[in-house]
Amino acid sequence: MQKVVAAGIGITKFGEHWNKSLRELAVEAALKAINDAEIEHEQIDAIWIGNMSSGRFIGQEHLGALIASDLGLNCGATRVEAACASGGLAIRQTYLALLSEKIDCALVIGVEKMTDLPTEEATVTLAAASDQEWEAYYGVTFPGLYAMLAKKHMHEFGTTREQLALVAVKNHEHGSLNPIAQFRNRITVEDVLNSSPVAEPLNLLDCSPISDGAAAILLCREDFLKPEKPVYLVASGHAVDTIALHERTSLTEITATKLAAKRAYEEAGIKPEQIDFAEVHDCFTIAEILAYEDLGFCEKGNGGKFVEDGETSLQGRIPVNTSGGLKSCGHPVGATGVKQAVETVLQLREEAGERQVKGARIGLTHNVGGSGATCVVHIWKKEF
Amino acid sequence: MQKVVAAGIGITKFGEHWNKSLRELAVEAALKAINDAEIEHEQIDAIWIGNMSSGRFIGQEHLGALIASDLGLNCGATRVEAACASGGLAIRQTYLALLSEKIDCALVIGVEKMTDLPTEEATVTLAAASDQEWEAYYGVTFPGLYAMLAKKHMHEFGTTREQLALVAVKNHEHGSLNPIAQFRNRITVEDVLNSSPVAEPLNLLDCSPISDGAAAILLCREDFLKPEKPVYLVASGHAVDTIALHERTSLTEITATKLAAKRAYEEAGIKPEQIDFAEVHDCFTIAEILAYEDLGFCEKGNGGKFVEDGETSLQGRIPVNTSGGLKSCGHPVGATGVKQAVETVLQLREEAGERQVKGARIGLTHNVGGSGATCVVHIWKKEF
Repeated sequence: MQKVVAAGIGITKFGEHWNKSLRELAVEAALKAINDAEIEHEQIDAIWIGNMSSGRFIGQEHLGALIASDLGLNCGATRVEAACASGGLAIRQTYLALLSEKIDCALVIGVEKMTDLPTEEATVTLAAASDQEWEAYYGVTFPGLYAMLAKKHMHEFGTTREQLALVAVKNHEHGSLNPIAQFRNRITVEDVLNSSPVAEPLNLLDCSPISDGAAAILLCREDFLKPEKPVYLVASGHAVDTIALHERTSLTEITATKLAAKRAYEEAGIKPEQIDFAEVHDCFTIAEILAYEDLGFCEKGNGGKFVEDGETSLQGRIPVNTSGGLKSCGHPVGATGVKQAVETVLQLREEAGERQVKGARIGLTHNVGGSGATCVVHIWKKEF
Repeated sequence: MQKVVAAGIGITKFGEHWNKSLRELAVEAALKAINDAEIEHEQIDAIWIGNMSSGRFIGQEHLGALIASDLGLNCGATRVEAACASGGLAIRQTYLALLSEKIDCALVIGVEKMTDLPTEEATVTLAAASDQEWEAYYGVTFPGLYAMLAKKHMHEFGTTREQLALVAVKNHEHGSLNPIAQFRNRITVEDVLNSSPVAEPLNLLDCSPISDGAAAILLCREDFLKPEKPVYLVASGHAVDTIALHERTSLTEITATKLAAKRAYEEAGIKPEQIDFAEVHDCFTIAEILAYEDLGFCEKGNGGKFVEDGETSLQGRIPVNTSGGLKSCGHPVGATGVKQAVETVLQLREEAGERQVKGARIGLTHNVGGSGATCVVHIWKKEF
């Protein structure tokens, strides 16, 4: 059985890049990954781009050819889209393609340039990831959709407003240690509770920001190149569910996460307890609590207590979102899934500086599209 | 070496579907393909969707989850975009994924719903497949870009206005025999020359239309299912070039086509002379002439004469675009690459009715994005 290994990583600062275009951000991250892998451009057989909505954000589709040719390459280049899970899904495509043995070495780039639109237009653009006919058309946007999930979880399991806030507090603490994070300030539960209401019970500091940024990872088969510090992509799980919330069987679990996680755990032959740390999709604070439960890190309904008990802090049993997560590190939507992989490789190589998880050997990345209609779960393992 | 086989095909009528939504079109084509394959829904491991710009055409991204869940499936579902090559590229992703042996059976759906926008907005939406910063921003649209390619070809090789027109005449003749074609009327060279000028030298009847439609193909590995009339996908070539014309080394050839074709011919171990018929990307009449040459069907510069001599007619040496091509069958952009595959499978199964190519054993599909920045070439072979 062939194995897929991370040969190089690269990332830009996440934030508001007024002076850089999408192509500049993508190329910057890509060149860093190529340099990190110490390979020649010509060794790259293919490129996958994770991007949600450059057609609407900047009037440019066809990013595969755009970015590949800016890198001086004629290889195949493919854009993949599944809303905010586009980056993770681009990694999955690359994983499958490498295992086909039709290509040996490929570059995955996640990128989004969101700040060229006014905030309200960006929100409308993001709403295209919800069900246009059944949700967006009636004016509900993502904070509203996740607010419904939060309300139901609070009602069903007694999850508290403070527990939601603690997710943001923890992630800002982690993000304060990450040089590329959009927001490096620490915040308190009070700050979250006093921030502007967005969609009850969610306030501004429960929500991930609008961001620009790019991340890149160079993946290859081990028989092509084995890096000095090999980090393997050992499993990839992918599942979907209905986009519209009203069609789901439950509002307190994300079925796509449960299915994608099950597929990934089975492929890797491991159990949730063996995961040392994880990057999960905290687009809103409630999303991280749902992820704890649906990924099997804690029992259903105990997610609020799990963060309150510090289990997912840097010093906890399973540190979650050491990068700062979407909340503090930023959420250039197409880039997020690839950023999660970059952070995971940094951790497994023990190159994560002040936010290093000691002795970590297995990491998990969890990338969600929409209000949970798409989920991609990857499991990464060091072998050195 | 595992082999990928076409197990089922389905297609909607191409045209203006005022009463059907994108999801309805996609589901219609998908169900036809599933029925044609005589499998159960649950046997489908994954879905790939080829779509260029639903985010702008109908305000809906995230089509993978949308369409999979409408089909009652929770399997992984991925949208792939490379402008007008999105459909062909979705087939390529599926091909690679099947060869990875991580999945056994997958559904590819190409779909676009373009007529919900006024024509001028649709043209602007399509222009997002060109280089936004260097082309679209300055007002050049696709007819203008292809007009430049036509002018240069006429200047360099003496290609005549009438030869361009003959491409459209031939494709309408073929399309008149195709029940799902958007335009089933026959036209003459006079009709083309007298139609409204769009971008000199191209007139209205040199241009493919704006269309709605969907096509689907069910692909699997032969060890999973071997249909009664097996048609194999034996090679997949993919290449890119700069999007902006001014950055190219030549305006009389499409480098991406040449590279993608070279890769596909090598993988299949065959020469252009062995191709019995082809579906090529005739978004404008000049594009089909360039395709003849860049795919190696005739010498560079002889494409005009090639069509004039009837070589690519239904009774010619290598019939091209028996479906009617983009020109007459219609061009719902994300669906086109999958429609080409559907037509090819019909031909190889000898189910193409009045437009059947007698004794055909090997077919080629050629799908282009933008003004040639992306090209995907597939080779299909019958074995019965």
